[in-house]
Amino acid sequence: MFHTDKIYEAELTELREKLLTVGGIVEQAIVRSVQALAERDSALARAVVADDRRVNLLEVEIDELCLRMLALRQPAASDLRFITIALKIVTDLERIGDLAVNVAERAIQLNEQPPVRPYVDIPRMAEIAEDMLKKALDAFVASDAAKAREVLEQDNEVDELYHMVFRELVEIMTAEPSVTARGMAILFIAKHLERIADHATNVAEMVIFYVEGRDVRHPKSRVLA
Amino acid sequence: MFHTDKIYEAELTELREKLLTVGGIVEQAIVRSVQALAERDSALARAVVADDRRVNLLEVEIDELCLRMLALRQPAASDLRFITIALKIVTDLERIGDLAVNVAERAIQLNEQPPVRPYVDIPRMAEIAEDMLKKALDAFVASDAAKAREVLEQDNEVDELYHMVFRELVEIMTAEPSVTARGMAILFIAKHLERIADHATNVAEMVIFYVEGRDVRHPKSRVLA
Repeated sequence: MFHTDKIYEAELTELREKLLTVGGIVEQAIVRSVQALAERDSALARAVVADDRRVNLLEVEIDELCLRMLALRQPAASDLRFITIALKIVTDLERIGDLAVNVAERAIQLNEQPPVRPYVDIPRMAEIAEDMLKKALDAFVASDAAKAREVLEQDNEVDELYHMVFRELVEIMTAEPSVTARGMAILFIAKHLERIADHATNVAEMVIFYVEGRDVRHPKSRVLA
Repeated sequence: MFHTDKIYEAELTELREKLLTVGGIVEQAIVRSVQALAERDSALARAVVADDRRVNLLEVEIDELCLRMLALRQPAASDLRFITIALKIVTDLERIGDLAVNVAERAIQLNEQPPVRPYVDIPRMAEIAEDMLKKALDAFVASDAAKAREVLEQDNEVDELYHMVFRELVEIMTAEPSVTARGMAILFIAKHLERIADHATNVAEMVIFYVEGRDVRHPKSRVLA
């Protein structure tokens, strides 16, 4: 029994570490995809695309690890919540990775054409989105629901920046129809970043559920306490 | 023990029924959001927005039911796969619901302005996306991996239609800058439908995993057999 406990503890540690590894890769992907755009560095954009393979492999490994633990270890209530939340969080992380790849691909396309305007709001969106994800994962590791709640507030900032970019691009394209195709590519980058922030928000919401699941103020979750 | 088994069977049935209920609501939301656009029917669009509340409530209920079953019933391998896949599928269904709401909101906005062009490809995209989701859920109920694989092929059709819409809208907006704002709203609708098809593809992929998880040709999944 002691031996089994040690395997189980090791699996929980492995799960936590793998999630943080994926988190680290996709955080970096957010930053680098927008850096590739701002600095017109298509080699960096291609590195983001290449790195996504690791994310996809790790997602499968995490899913399998979770299923194995659920099947063989009969985890106690709080570990059970941890494992099922991990199953959900990894899906968000994998999609953030996909979205960063989409940004990188658009950057490659835009880097081949003359610049429209210097990018100001888009790097800011990426910065906030990356910070949200980092904070959500830190909150997960530290079981810190207060920190997770900060993430929810930051999502509004990203939404506002997105709407600013949208309005500005409509104006530019209306005045200067020759930039329409490029304007739409830029708009999609802004949209991808806005969705990355949404996924970081999902992670934060799941962390709050994970931390407060046993809270009697959430009567529906009492059965899991 | 017999009594517990009966509760457990009832819970599995409840889980399956709730998933199919959510599936039915979001299938209808896809169809109606695009109908609201094509027929300029904003009342119908608002009904789609209102219905999404039910989806969100059911998502929470499904998550809680899955966690309760995992915690209390020590499910056998194939049921365990069913429950964990249900946890993932409901996330995709909930996001499809959100995307249909986004389509409905854009439809309301477009219905207040003069039409740009009759919609041809967009209703076709919605039709295929809805069919994909229906097929994926039928495949889930029937444990039919072959049917789930059909969904993966249909996703390419939707992607092609999306790219056609994209190119056509760039042409229209470049030639006629006054329609830029409306063109972008239409483009987002096409993008939302393309993502709905992606989520239906995710569901289909999970059904394949669910059905073939015990298959020895997938050595990594053997532990779950």
